Formats: sequence, structure tokens, C-alpha cells
Amino acid sequence: MDFKQTLRQNAKKTESLLKKVADDFAKNQVNEAIKYSLLDGGKRLRPSLVFETAKLFGVYDNNVERIAMAIEMIHTYSLIHDDLPCMDNDDFRRGKPSCHKQFGEDIAVLAGDGLLNLASETLLGGVCSQNYFDSIKFVFECSGICGMIGGQAIDISKTKTNDFETLEFLTENKTAKLVMACVCSTAIYCGASKKQKESLCEFAKNFGIAFQIADDLLDAESDKNLSFSNLLGIDGAKDQLQKYTNQALNELNDCFAKEKLSFFEQLLDYNLKRNH
Amino acid sequence: MDFKQTLRQNAKKTESLLKKVADDFAKNQVNEAIKYSLLDGGKRLRPSLVFETAKLFGVYDNNVERIAMAIEMIHTYSLIHDDLPCMDNDDFRRGKPSCHKQFGEDIAVLAGDGLLNLASETLLGGVCSQNYFDSIKFVFECSGICGMIGGQAIDISKTKTNDFETLEFLTENKTAKLVMACVCSTAIYCGASKKQKESLCEFAKNFGIAFQIADDLLDAESDKNLSFSNLLGIDGAKDQLQKYTNQALNELNDCFAKEKLSFFEQLLDYNLKRNH
Repeated sequence: MDFKQTLRQNAKKTESLLKKVADDFAKNQVNEAIKYSLLDGGKRLRPSLVFETAKLFGVYDNNVERIAMAIEMIHTYSLIHDDLPCMDNDDFRRGKPSCHKQFGEDIAVLAGDGLLNLASETLLGGVCSQNYFDSIKFVFECSGICGMIGGQAIDISKTKTNDFETLEFLTENKTAKLVMACVCSTAIYCGASKKQKESLCEFAKNFGIAFQIADDLLDAESDKNLSFSNLLGIDGAKDQLQKYTNQALNELNDCFAKEKLSFFEQLLDYNLKRNH
Repeated sequence: MDFKQTLRQNAKKTESLLKKVADDFAKNQVNEAIKYSLLDGGKRLRPSLVFETAKLFGVYDNNVERIAMAIEMIHTYSLIHDDLPCMDNDDFRRGKPSCHKQFGEDIAVLAGDGLLNLASETLLGGVCSQNYFDSIKFVFECSGICGMIGGQAIDISKTKTNDFETLEFLTENKTAKLVMACVCSTAIYCGASKKQKESLCEFAKNFGIAFQIADDLLDAESDKNLSFSNLLGIDGAKDQLQKYTNQALNELNDCFAKEKLSFFEQLLDYNLKRNH
């Protein structure tokens, strides 16, 4: 099956899993806001990474589904809070009014909180094992103050410096850590060897940064913030995109048979060409 | 040891545990805001309930400490977000500027998010067992959209009705569920019997509601919202306080030897007299 078809199938699976969770929601505005933001038919790249990593190990079960759903919930909550007037103040998200525009700021704050909490509930609804426990722990290390929130803390800091070191730290934490959560927490759950875990973590980190650079290049004209295209220029950013893409691929090839890597190779290629 | 001394000792223990966690924080404004709100020398009633419930079963270990810390983190994050301008818009919390007043709204939103995430990290840093896994699951069920956040969703709703049924639902979810998290998740971890868990849950629910009524009575003159004192008058609210207190005590007496219950009895008595 080709890459885009796989991506679409995984997105459909994710949508249907999340819909089942949302069907049990009590009727109130906060839950409506959660549904509005969570069930928006996005690409579901993060759940796709979970499913395709699990496939590397021949695993598919309810716990894998829970990891996929939980990380999408964490991603969605971070977007809701990022869009708030006191943060990025974005009125639109994926072509429709952002959560606080549609429901009000108070409800958007609670919807974000509710989603982060729901990620914990979703993960803890699974079957307990030492590997699963460790994988859940890894997810929240990636999304917390030493990961995604740590990156956001630097991003909103009034004293941040406009240099490459800051940009790399910010990108690794704000974007790449949640990509690492998808790939590495699934690998931990699936019983990956130490070498496999290390390679997959490095792949995910490099792909996560490459993904952010491609995003920066797409937004190059409108973005006023510290970004790869603003700091290095278009050509400099493209060089970095290629560098991180190569590094990501090398890591994988070290550890898995080439015929197993088709999805990941095509994903890197797709990301590389996004900005053309 | 008398009740107030026990409470002070538990508060001191909690403060020192939380300080150790905060010592490892990276230096940034979000982490400073988390420390500011978390390490404020409060009564630490919720951690105290965790420690004293564990004592009923003769248990004290690192996992119990983690349950105590995590619930205090969840409580603190809910206060930071509750105080935001788009929510209750409170400038002060426990005699000092609220988190967003001190650090700005964007940092306060992230500090709350960071604390909720830190609660997960703290719990998942413990030693895995089926009972512990189940107890963590219970914590997040209590704090989520079917618990604390569900209660807040009704509280901020513009269409909520001013009746006793709504008030009971709101109080049980917004306040009592986190009290239930303290007592029942600890009981689950300590291997309580089904009967013990049921009794402790009912105790915690009734004490949680009684605690909120005593709070309502203290704020009776300033509070304009739906509250026990506003809906039932001072005398009506006092009757309800006595009713829930009696119910809480009856549940405990059914299940544990009287000599083990001294802390809980004195706690109910202390709460009953708070408003005099």
C-alpha cells in the first residue's frame, strides 16, 4: 500500500476511535468544545506514527490504539491553549474558528485541561504491564516541562535570544518531543531492544525537527517569530531540512530491514517536498 | 498525636517532597510560576488525606508520597486556571497575587498545563503494580470531564439552573471528586476490600460536600454565585453541613475500628466548626 493511502487509513481509524470516546461524553459546552477540536478530520500524523511503529514490531492491540489517541489528545489540547488570546491569539485553526472563538475563552481553557486529563484516562484505561507503564511515563515526559511545555516556555519568553542554539532547543522540545512520544513510547510498549529504542528516538527527533523546518518554510512569508527560514534564510533552512532528513533516515537504516521502512522513507520524502 | 499536629506534620512532609521535585526544574518563567503556586505553604489537606488513609492500612511508601504530591499538583493547577481573567478573574490567592497577576496570563496557562502534566509524570515515576495502576486511573477519573472539570463546566455554564440538584452535582464534582481521589485512590493502592473502598468513597464524597458547605458559609456575605448559603440561607446550609458530616462519619464507623478513626473524626469536627 502506498504512503498516502496508509496515512488516510490510519487517519480514518483514529477518527473512528476518537468518535467512540466522544460518544460517551456528558452533554455540556466543555465537552462540545473538546469534540469540536478533536474530531476535525486532520491528517492524524501522530497516531499514524504510533500505528506504523507498532507495525515494525508486529504489534496491534487496544493499548496501541490508546497511545495513538492520547497523543492526538495532547496535541489537540496544546493547539487550543496556543490559540488563546493571551498566547498566539489565533482566530482560525484548520480553516474554522479556533476553539475560544467558537465557545469562549473560559470554555477553551477547560476544554484544553479536559483533553490533557482525558489523555491520562485513555492511557490508564489500557491493560497494565511494566512495558505499558514505562511507555505512558515516556509520553508525559515528552509533553511536560522537560518537553513540549518546556519548549513553549522558551518560545513565549520575552528574553529569548535569536540564535541557532535557542531555535534548536525550542524546536526539539516544542515539536520534536511529541513526535518522539509517538515513536518511542510505542517502541517501549512493543518491547524494542535498547539499540532499537535509541535509533527510533534519534529518527523521531530528527524527523520532528525536519517537520518543523518544512512548516517554517511554508509560513516563511507570514511568520515574524524565531524560525529556521527567518534565521537562516530560505536556502539555509532548506539545507537544514535536508540535513535532518538524512540523519533521520540513517538512524532507521542502521536498525531495521529496508523492506520494513517504506512508510518512514516515504514520510521523510513527503515532508521534504511539502514546501514546493 | 492530636489532629492539628498531624495536619502540620503532613503539610511539612508534603512541602519538603514538592520542594525536592521543584529543585530539578530548569530555569524558566513557567517553572518559576509553578514553584510560586505550588510551594506556598498551604494546609495540604489533600496530601494529609492520602497519608492518613494509607495509615489505615499500615502502608507508607514512595508510591503513597507520589499520590499525595500529584493530587496537590492537580489541585494547584485548577486554582491557577480558575483565577484567570476569563474564568473567576481573581487577583489574589492565599494573600498573594494570583499566578497570572505575578507572571502574566500566558505563563499562568502554561504553568497550569505543566502542573497537570507533572502530576502524571510524578505518578508514573512510581513502582508499577496492578493496584497502583488502578489507583492512578482513579485519580484522573476524579479530576477529568466526569469529575472536577465536569463540575467546573457546569459552574461556568450560562444556562445553569439555581436549584438544589444542580448545586449538589456541581459540588460533588467540582470539590468532592478530588477529595475522593485522595482517599479512594490511596485505598485502591493499599489493597482495600470492596466494602472498605465503598465506605471510604462515601465518606470522602460526604466530607467533600461538607467541606464545600463550610467554605460557602465562610464566604456567605461576599459570594454571589450558586452556593449552599445563597440557595438555602445560613440556617439551611448549616443543617446540610451537619447532615453530610453525620453521613461521612457513619460510613467510616461501619468499616473501621473506632481507635483508627481519630484523625477523620477530628477532621469532620474541625470542618463543622470552621464557620463559627
